[in-house]
Amino acid sequence: MTPTPPQDPDSERPGRIMSREMAEQPAVLRRLLDTGAPAIRETAERVAERKPRFVLLTARGTSDHAALYAKYLLEVRLGMPCGLASMSTITAYGAKPDLRDVLVVTVSQSGGSPDLVASAQAAREAGAITLAVTNNPDSPLAAVSQHHIDILAGPERALPATKTYTASLLALYLFVERLGGSDGAAAVSLPELAAGLLARQDEVKALAARYRFAERMVITSRGYGYPTAKEAALKLMETSYIPALAYSGADLLHGPLAMVDNISPVIAVVTDGRGGEALQPVLDRLRGRGADLVVIGPKAQVEQASAGFVLPTDGVAEEVQPILEIIPLQLLAYEVTIARGQDPDAPRALAKVTETR
Amino acid sequence: MTPTPPQDPDSERPGRIMSREMAEQPAVLRRLLDTGAPAIRETAERVAERKPRFVLLTARGTSDHAALYAKYLLEVRLGMPCGLASMSTITAYGAKPDLRDVLVVTVSQSGGSPDLVASAQAAREAGAITLAVTNNPDSPLAAVSQHHIDILAGPERALPATKTYTASLLALYLFVERLGGSDGAAAVSLPELAAGLLARQDEVKALAARYRFAERMVITSRGYGYPTAKEAALKLMETSYIPALAYSGADLLHGPLAMVDNISPVIAVVTDGRGGEALQPVLDRLRGRGADLVVIGPKAQVEQASAGFVLPTDGVAEEVQPILEIIPLQLLAYEVTIARGQDPDAPRALAKVTETR
Repeated sequence: MTPTPPQDPDSERPGRIMSREMAEQPAVLRRLLDTGAPAIRETAERVAERKPRFVLLTARGTSDHAALYAKYLLEVRLGMPCGLASMSTITAYGAKPDLRDVLVVTVSQSGGSPDLVASAQAAREAGAITLAVTNNPDSPLAAVSQHHIDILAGPERALPATKTYTASLLALYLFVERLGGSDGAAAVSLPELAAGLLARQDEVKALAARYRFAERMVITSRGYGYPTAKEAALKLMETSYIPALAYSGADLLHGPLAMVDNISPVIAVVTDGRGGEALQPVLDRLRGRGADLVVIGPKAQVEQASAGFVLPTDGVAEEVQPILEIIPLQLLAYEVTIARGQDPDAPRALAKVTETR
Repeated sequence: MTPTPPQDPDSERPGRIMSREMAEQPAVLRRLLDTGAPAIRETAERVAERKPRFVLLTARGTSDHAALYAKYLLEVRLGMPCGLASMSTITAYGAKPDLRDVLVVTVSQSGGSPDLVASAQAAREAGAITLAVTNNPDSPLAAVSQHHIDILAGPERALPATKTYTASLLALYLFVERLGGSDGAAAVSLPELAAGLLARQDEVKALAARYRFAERMVITSRGYGYPTAKEAALKLMETSYIPALAYSGADLLHGPLAMVDNISPVIAVVTDGRGGEALQPVLDRLRGRGADLVVIGPKAQVEQASAGFVLPTDGVAEEVQPILEIIPLQLLAYEVTIARGQDPDAPRALAKVTETR
């Protein structure tokens, strides 16, 4: 009788890869702060010498939400006008923009998408200052860019990106702060706070129960929380396949509100700060319509909602809150998917490096 | 016996206001070409004298999709780097950007949203060249902007904007072409072609039947057709309340594709040109998954899909196709809503001027 080789009892558990990578986030953030920050700051100083006046951000999918976060930082903290690039104008139409004084930042976990490489190359030829933010310093994107920031997240195997998202946000935060001459001190407590959020998975599991049979969801926010709303919607869709629509609170009032009723639950990401304040009239309107409203935000906001998840806010600057507030929403995507009997590690049809041109 | 006063037999028909305004589109486009174009060209010449290097576009809802169309035009036709403004950075966070050499274009049907007025005012104070594109020359937005383009669409009473959308696109097209020193000749045949599309409402009614029981929809495109996809999704949602998710073809492959299966019908807007070519790999992938694919586009593309609506392409430049291709999609939103027993003129919860700050 040949003995069966020992098996990892966990090896078939649905979502184990995504689960493990979400749990790595405090360590990844710590590594970036302890090991990665000096190189990021040096890169920022070299870019600052070129005195960019405008910033174009280029990315796809989850990285596009990190780029949007950077747009808010650059505009609010540094007063630099920014745009998110429409990549096809260069890759499909061959546009030849004049990019002198323009910093082009390309964000990509893999650094391997051919369209991102092509557009970074074209930007450099058009006179831009080019910066790649990736999880792979040996990637083609890093090679074609003048500057590179390594987000040091370690290999990411799950198809739904989690740790590379929070790592990209922190790397971009440290970069933008240094571009403006600051040291990014507001980030110091993030690893510990992230660990605290991950320890509250049971609270998220209870929230997930209400979405098990949801046919659609609306996620809203304003200001710094808006990239979180977009990333949460993508995470929910790519794991659970629930159509999740993300809107800035202001856009929600311009049409999609018609779709919100007692069968469209709403999740509001409420930052503790001016973004959250600007969202108040939208929350009042949603409550007035009797919407099922779940708030991810400060305690006082959660208490006025149907349910929610309280975020730590004491001493956490609004501009770094997005690095934390996505964590319960990653957990929610995971738990909703498990509750629906699906495997968050095995979304249909997705490849980790998307080969669009 | 007092005789009953005569009643308009049509006065209670659901969707009569939206229907009438859609039907006005050929006349509105003709009016812009015949009456509006000289003033638009003069405005473009005055803006060109200021030699803007960058463009920021500011808008909400339907107008945001017109702004996105202008972004493609400015980048592809003129090589001018552009961004869509994140309005809350100015209105909520008080960002003080440096906007010298920056053209800030604010698009708003009513010209009355307080947040748009505030951000246009702030842009002007920050040194920008400011242009408002509205349907109301007496609006506060027109008053605070240095330049104004009147889209001459006449009063719009329906809550779902239709004629002001196509009029905004045409006005922006004429403006951008003149900014680049051209006369916009590609627009001449649009009124007649628009009338031809409107005459094919029965074809759209047949298409609408397949979405009567749809619980969600995905709308995709690339390049110039992408604003159309976003506007079609908004139109469907605000009239029929079907969650309609719009993605650029490239982004669709980065996650949301997991959500597309035989219960998520897909509408692809395929331009006749480079945008449509860049979309081909996405269409192949969707066909490979057995998706229910409806194509709005050239005949050859429609023939490879589950169903579709053939657009006229002979001699229609790709950059003006968006002004036509939205029309069957407006009709589709209308017909799907009627088929579901709802009234396209009475979306829940919407006000015509949205008072966000």
